[in-house]
Amino acid sequence: MRSKHNSPRPQTSFRASGPALLKMALFSVRKARECWRFIRALHKGPAATLAPQKESGERVFSGIQPTGILHLGNYLGAIESWVNLQEEYDTVIYSIVDLHSITVPQDPTVLQQSILDMTAVLLACGINPEKSILFQQSKVSEHTQLSWILTCMVRLPRLQHLHQWKAKAAKQKHDGTVGLLTYPVLQAADILCYKSTHVPVGEDQVQHMELVQDLARSFNQKYGEFFPLPKSILTSMKKVKSLRDPSAKMSKSDPDKLATVRITDSPEEIVQKFRKAVTDFTSEVTYEPDSRAGVSNMVAIHAAVSGLSVEEVVRSSAGLDTARYKLLVADAVIEKFAPIRKEIEKLKMDKDHLRKVLLVGSAKAKELASPVFEEVKKLVGIL
Amino acid sequence: MRSKHNSPRPQTSFRASGPALLKMALFSVRKARECWRFIRALHKGPAATLAPQKESGERVFSGIQPTGILHLGNYLGAIESWVNLQEEYDTVIYSIVDLHSITVPQDPTVLQQSILDMTAVLLACGINPEKSILFQQSKVSEHTQLSWILTCMVRLPRLQHLHQWKAKAAKQKHDGTVGLLTYPVLQAADILCYKSTHVPVGEDQVQHMELVQDLARSFNQKYGEFFPLPKSILTSMKKVKSLRDPSAKMSKSDPDKLATVRITDSPEEIVQKFRKAVTDFTSEVTYEPDSRAGVSNMVAIHAAVSGLSVEEVVRSSAGLDTARYKLLVADAVIEKFAPIRKEIEKLKMDKDHLRKVLLVGSAKAKELASPVFEEVKKLVGIL
Repeated sequence: MRSKHNSPRPQTSFRASGPALLKMALFSVRKARECWRFIRALHKGPAATLAPQKESGERVFSGIQPTGILHLGNYLGAIESWVNLQEEYDTVIYSIVDLHSITVPQDPTVLQQSILDMTAVLLACGINPEKSILFQQSKVSEHTQLSWILTCMVRLPRLQHLHQWKAKAAKQKHDGTVGLLTYPVLQAADILCYKSTHVPVGEDQVQHMELVQDLARSFNQKYGEFFPLPKSILTSMKKVKSLRDPSAKMSKSDPDKLATVRITDSPEEIVQKFRKAVTDFTSEVTYEPDSRAGVSNMVAIHAAVSGLSVEEVVRSSAGLDTARYKLLVADAVIEKFAPIRKEIEKLKMDKDHLRKVLLVGSAKAKELASPVFEEVKKLVGIL
Repeated sequence: MRSKHNSPRPQTSFRASGPALLKMALFSVRKARECWRFIRALHKGPAATLAPQKESGERVFSGIQPTGILHLGNYLGAIESWVNLQEEYDTVIYSIVDLHSITVPQDPTVLQQSILDMTAVLLACGINPEKSILFQQSKVSEHTQLSWILTCMVRLPRLQHLHQWKAKAAKQKHDGTVGLLTYPVLQAADILCYKSTHVPVGEDQVQHMELVQDLARSFNQKYGEFFPLPKSILTSMKKVKSLRDPSAKMSKSDPDKLATVRITDSPEEIVQKFRKAVTDFTSEVTYEPDSRAGVSNMVAIHAAVSGLSVEEVVRSSAGLDTARYKLLVADAVIEKFAPIRKEIEKLKMDKDHLRKVLLVGSAKAKELASPVFEEVKKLVGIL
């Protein structure tokens, strides 16, 4: 991983020019990156060259299911770091993993719309198809092809012991589909078919990342060193909690509609949800996540959306009671989401553009996956 | 299904001219077929036309694993009927299912060679790429893509209760790969991605065919009538038994090398195997499969390779003792396999030709599977 810095919210590319200011900011970021590479090269001594970063072979991959509207937790926990990673790596691949969505029943019309909606949301959040590859999983056949080969390398108990399967199968009365059982293998294929080296994941995916590494290791042991063992990038922070139950994660499937702030919520809805957010009987604003989960969640959200530190946020809120503080946080969230929401609305009007983004992205992804899979077939003996 | 007639062993197409006699025979078969269609059309009354048979939408699909050399049981039980089906249906698709082979460990070099060898064997047996589509499964990505969609429609216990999984998993100390568990779903995809209507199968595949029909039915229920429910063509006869244990099926994996007659065995090997074939203490030649399994197996093989009926064979063998009869059967097998064996040797010399056959076949298969899968994606909502 390279230097960490906050990127500006990049323009949603493929579209005509963004504001000049944004362009200048992006230009500065690129210049800073060139400087950084130069310093690294010098540091490596005289033999090191200024080869373009992409030759390092580092590749970031991550995926997001198209179903359900992105919420504050997804945004702060994943998408914001996806945006930043575009500045830190040259090959960054983001997939709308529609084939994972169908492991549970979906309405076809809704699913089709969701794929375009998620594309709009990601673009509006700052995923820039000129800096990263944004594509639809099912358009790149190498994912399921490699998945089959990996399926032939894993034993049943290995999958049955994964926490998520146990939890999901239990929820569905021990009656989950086989897709729900084997989707971590498809996930491994998603990652490995690009020879990805880094994968930003949430903590709930740590066990699945171990499976990916095990499968890469097994393959390499059998067929010779081929796959890099992909490393997790644990998104540093920002486990946003439910506004109604601060002991639980914010979740898109929460039955209490007030618990989850969606990226497309209107300012009125956001205010209402924060007003009803559960805190405690102490009116002071402090950050004590263990003893005061509710108000600490407010502080964490406030810090995250404003870009300030927790300490700065607490200091700036001295004298406010929690009721007034919740409205302040609501305002900060509204301010953060306003331009994104506006951009989503704009993008959703132009379905052809969204389809084109996915089509171009999928072609680029295919271009990377295809030679990797050809090599795999040669190694396995089926070319 | 259409009229049944024995086709001559067709030329191994893509190659330069075969003997003139063969051509004439083929010509007669074609003429007979045209006549038959004409009669059928007349029979249907004045509204019926002489439209080409392919518009019936009937499609035959079957697959064979590339690993292991074909034996007498495979030949008489499956491949001979594959050859005949080429004359009875216009769209006949035969796949060398390499992706099924890897559900158990394979040596990559051996596997690669086996794929070409099986191609040579099938061509030599009479599979004619001008009449049927002969291709390599892994070259048509629609198989694994559709397989994933079907995997998301099946519950775990449904697969765990299949006899083959239970037997195989038990053999592998309850430690089979997930591929071994889910391969019947891939098999369903193999069949359905061509909207196949007929599948020649052995009795051991009846349960898997029920799964294919169930999956087609589930899909149609959820997304509207789309897949035909494919029918099994149970190959009428010819369960060839082991020469060493006539209570068991002839099997390529039999540890007793004398039990199995391979299509590539030399005449000396064939004579030796039949000489050692287990019969009983009665020297007369009769056909009583329940009480005299060994000699009845000889009679069945003799009838199958000579094209005579069991009664004719028994009548013609009156006065022979079983020891001499076994040598007679060996001779009939040698005579049947001699031209095939010679053709296999010739074909194996020309690997480029074999590769070309698979490449052209796979392109044709892709052409059929691709529009079907596009429709599937549209129905599922991921197009």
